[in-house]
Amino acid sequence: MRYLPGEPHQLPRGRNSLGNYQPEHFLFTVEQGVATLTLNRPERKNPLTFDSYAELRDLFRALAYADDVKTLVITGAGENFCSGGDVHDIIGPLTKLDMPGLLAFTRMTGDLVKSMRACPQPIVSAIDGICAGAGAIVAMASDIRYGTARSKTAFLFTRVGLAGCDMGACALLPRLIGQGRASELLFSGRSLGGEEAERWGFLNRLCAPEAVLADAQAFALQLAQGPTFAHGITKKMLQQEWNMGVDEAIEAEAQAQAICMATNDFHRAYNAFVAKEKPAFEGN
Amino acid sequence: MRYLPGEPHQLPRGRNSLGNYQPEHFLFTVEQGVATLTLNRPERKNPLTFDSYAELRDLFRALAYADDVKTLVITGAGENFCSGGDVHDIIGPLTKLDMPGLLAFTRMTGDLVKSMRACPQPIVSAIDGICAGAGAIVAMASDIRYGTARSKTAFLFTRVGLAGCDMGACALLPRLIGQGRASELLFSGRSLGGEEAERWGFLNRLCAPEAVLADAQAFALQLAQGPTFAHGITKKMLQQEWNMGVDEAIEAEAQAQAICMATNDFHRAYNAFVAKEKPAFEGN
Amino acid sequence: MRYLPGEPHQLPRGRNSLGNYQPEHFLFTVEQGVATLTLNRPERKNPLTFDSYAELRDLFRALAYADDVKTLVITGAGENFCSGGDVHDIIGPLTKLDMPGLLAFTRMTGDLVKSMRACPQPIVSAIDGICAGAGAIVAMASDIRYGTARSKTAFLFTRVGLAGCDMGACALLPRLIGQGRASELLFSGRSLGGEEAERWGFLNRLCAPEAVLADAQAFALQLAQGPTFAHGITKKMLQQEWNMGVDEAIEAEAQAQAICMATNDFHRAYNAFVAKEKPAFEGN
Repeated sequence: MRYLPGEPHQLPRGRNSLGNYQPEHFLFTVEQGVATLTLNRPERKNPLTFDSYAELRDLFRALAYADDVKTLVITGAGENFCSGGDVHDIIGPLTKLDMPGLLAFTRMTGDLVKSMRACPQPIVSAIDGICAGAGAIVAMASDIRYGTARSKTAFLFTRVGLAGCDMGACALLPRLIGQGRASELLFSGRSLGGEEAERWGFLNRLCAPEAVLADAQAFALQLAQGPTFAHGITKKMLQQEWNMGVDEAIEAEAQAQAICMATNDFHRAYNAFVAKEKPAFEGN
Repeated sequence: MRYLPGEPHQLPRGRNSLGNYQPEHFLFTVEQGVATLTLNRPERKNPLTFDSYAELRDLFRALAYADDVKTLVITGAGENFCSGGDVHDIIGPLTKLDMPGLLAFTRMTGDLVKSMRACPQPIVSAIDGICAGAGAIVAMASDIRYGTARSKTAFLFTRVGLAGCDMGACALLPRLIGQGRASELLFSGRSLGGEEAERWGFLNRLCAPEAVLADAQAFALQLAQGPTFAHGITKKMLQQEWNMGVDEAIEAEAQAQAICMATNDFHRAYNAFVAKEKPAFEGN
Repeated sequence: MRYLPGEPHQLPRGRNSLGNYQPEHFLFTVEQGVATLTLNRPERKNPLTFDSYAELRDLFRALAYADDVKTLVITGAGENFCSGGDVHDIIGPLTKLDMPGLLAFTRMTGDLVKSMRACPQPIVSAIDGICAGAGAIVAMASDIRYGTARSKTAFLFTRVGLAGCDMGACALLPRLIGQGRASELLFSGRSLGGEEAERWGFLNRLCAPEAVLADAQAFALQLAQGPTFAHGITKKMLQQEWNMGVDEAIEAEAQAQAICMATNDFHRAYNAFVAKEKPAFEGN
């Protein structure tokens, strides 16, 4: 019995490189440790389908083992980020599924967010134009968001008769912008403009439309040239401490930071400081 | 032995309608699925008493079963929201209670917030003028807050010798405006003006004083005409996921959204989309 | 075997006063119940050392028992707050420690934050100039932050090859400024200017450089003249409710506030109100 729409994809197994990975449903390039993932159906504002969901999920799971990708930028082709789940390709078929089929779908989309939060690479989204539904979720599940003033982010699940609790939105969005603002967006499904999104802390930075991808890549490159093993620990601990008590979080960080103090990158930084040089981190 | 000030009220039992409910201590009307609750002792800036606390608690508990109320607006009569617990009617008697009596009171007031968070209807507060003490708590415990520039919100418990931890304030307020700003308000008891409140995310919107109630009702009506079953799930999950880990929250949402995908409202939305019509949601 | 750098200090034991406490590694004065702690190596921008970390930790532990300190202000001498752990005095030696030694260090620094969060006194930081690394942590671990437009706060652990998870930063910082902004600061290590810090809610107030200490002391004095027992309960509950569910937090507050209603300060406030006088709180 097959509930899950979207087959597992042929990602490289038993290797540690994603440099030559050629996905079916989006573009993927790696340069200087920075991967750029481009949602690429610009004529439809880059919607997701069952298959692209599954391929994205599998890619993020593979990223946990990829040595040659240090940070990742997600963007959309043609001046839009992502219009979310396609009404014809996804919502239509969903109306015909039984309950196990529905749950298989919501779990698959949730697994995309889980895998984005679980991979050690910091994820930077470059957001222009429409960023809606599952597209807004992908932006939300990123670590950093660069956007444009004209970008429009909408958690519009309510408009298709659904709840705002999609792929972790009721957990993640309140921690980004506060419980009251998140409640308004999730209940109403309204669009959040770029300037308001920056003011609320959803966007980390407003960029010019023609520069947003390059700016995001530049930031990602800066991180890729930093202590990437430590970045992975930072990302892991932001996740781990989500619902710990303060004292337990502090003990967890004492252990995690002690691990980082045993890395060569920590020694490299100290030696460079003593030598009055810029440290060259190697991620180990 | 009777600790609890405030008798249970005669709310309609065994029925699913609150349309004709006539409370003793405040006004309550229902129109097009939008209930408007008006605190109505304007000459005293709408303070709460033992009895009005209890009646409010019982109303919010009854709302969980009311079919004809889809959203709720809370406001105050006479250009003020609510001045909180009356000094003469509440604080005086409290100074004479023994410990079980004190705990019965703090639990009753806490039960008001619990019932506001537990009812499925989104609650929109329309806040003008004074919003202090328990009034600030009622605003805080709402889902959405519309206010005016001249509104003054004060968590002033410290000024009567008490702690800021009243009715959930140390849990809820930090998630609305951040831990540092919440700490300042709770330790100092100072008034938060309307513009600052909007900037901090306590207020969702600033409205003109003469329009704030109508604006809140218009927003509530918009939600009441949406997929109200799904709204109740959104509200429930915002509460459920409060202190879950991220992965657990995502699984919880996969289940909750699968439930919503099995509703008729989801099918109505899809069919309306295909027919290029506006969906007419029915909350089931 | 001695892992822990920094000996326990000779703090007054078996006494309840810190009024005459003379620390070795910083300045400490108490006036009208307000303690002022000044990091005082201005020629190096007030860095921390193994010994000053340990002495700070021991002081904050002792504060839990001090009757004569009601609130505390932390500042730095010479127009800077604190430059963090000294590269020569701390980072050099750390590169030579084994794993138990590293963990002893990260636990000691974590214990400083734990003791700051555990002492009942509200802590107000007065931040000018450089506020970096462990200095940024000390600011973050305070209850309230007053700062200047020219202040620069940097969680720069990444620049020395470490993770952002230092002394609780991945838990505390997201609750102050939101998860997205915290992620950016912790991954990048960049400086946060004063105006942005106020806009984000990291700083509670921007002050003139020549006034920031006096302003912080004035706020601390106002709190010291309030119901200080209740303030201690407010601080405790902000900590306790960090990762409780909403309903559990409300019950916890019902109990905590009932305790405060049994204090004399609550009665003093009521009696003063009836007599139309200003209450004189005594912290009991």
